[in-house]
Amino acid sequence: MLLLVSGPSGSGKTTLCRRAATAGIANYAISCTTRPSRPGEEHGIDYFFLSVDEFKTKIANDELLEYAEVHGNFYGTLKSEVFSYIENGKDVVMDIDVQGAEQIRTCLEAKVQLALVDLFVMPDSEEELRKRLNERGTDSDEVIEKRMRNSLKEMQQWTKYTYCILSNDRETDYKKFASILSTESLSVSRIIH
Amino acid sequence: MLLLVSGPSGSGKTTLCRRAATAGIANYAISCTTRPSRPGEEHGIDYFFLSVDEFKTKIANDELLEYAEVHGNFYGTLKSEVFSYIENGKDVVMDIDVQGAEQIRTCLEAKVQLALVDLFVMPDSEEELRKRLNERGTDSDEVIEKRMRNSLKEMQQWTKYTYCILSNDRETDYKKFASILSTESLSVSRIIH
Repeated sequence: MLLLVSGPSGSGKTTLCRRAATAGIANYAISCTTRPSRPGEEHGIDYFFLSVDEFKTKIANDELLEYAEVHGNFYGTLKSEVFSYIENGKDVVMDIDVQGAEQIRTCLEAKVQLALVDLFVMPDSEEELRKRLNERGTDSDEVIEKRMRNSLKEMQQWTKYTYCILSNDRETDYKKFASILSTESLSVSRIIH
Repeated sequence: MLLLVSGPSGSGKTTLCRRAATAGIANYAISCTTRPSRPGEEHGIDYFFLSVDEFKTKIANDELLEYAEVHGNFYGTLKSEVFSYIENGKDVVMDIDVQGAEQIRTCLEAKVQLALVDLFVMPDSEEELRKRLNERGTDSDEVIEKRMRNSLKEMQQWTKYTYCILSNDRETDYKKFASILSTESLSVSRIIH
């Protein structure tokens, strides 16, 4: 199973995915990006940091399950990163923007090889969203406003998802997240196929 | 939402439903039956105990969501028992045999008014099933053999269900059961409708 997790910047989607991986209940699919790494971020742990040329080569070689340009940078997911887990019967979680989720849903290779489930993490208010975007403290006001506008646009897409968590505190959110992973493993259609 | 829970006698399905009701995460729909009450069982708590005549009147008046004859006794579910919860936006769990579950799935009234989810609780071995059937200690060998044969037949129907819990210890089973209730409440299709 591949669980796609979307939600605006600051919704806590990455934390949820990472925590599930740390707890050993799923594997985290690392994305690749051309954006510069932030302080403390490591290649191969937080992202695969690629140059624009490297990224474009992967596009040309059809190595990406999905990719998109967001805020002027490329983001994408390597097929090898996801399929290596799936082929070994392991569940994968990944955080992904709504454009990327849509691409994976319509990708023929994904349709054939993956049991797809998707989740939208919704902030409980616009104020909470703004607060969380400010918390990070590493972005300029301009970047924050850009993310805010983009987030509000993304949030309109929540009805396309299987599940929606209305964000509360991080502990409650994680319990819900873990229950989705647990429940999906009990699905008869998944057990049979 | 109405969660139907099936599984052979002794699979622990009733315990799961009752415990969820005690924990306040769902309401338990009490069945009605014409079988004699066992020691300790109370009318209106364990079952609504009805005479055969009373049961047949309810059938004639179309008051039952489903009914079946099992082991020579009538068992059924009152529409009023389920719909009163559903109309107030509350989740309902009920333990039900596979015949009854099938009737509810195909009942037009249920289709229109209920968001149906179903779960099969599967014993992890034939030995475990026999052990659990013996544990109750209130049934004769003949009754146990009859239940055993019926159970093995019922177990063939598990693929008709949305979810399947392969029974382990009661604590693990309950955690899975609670995660199904939690996850279903996060379903976007359920939130929208």
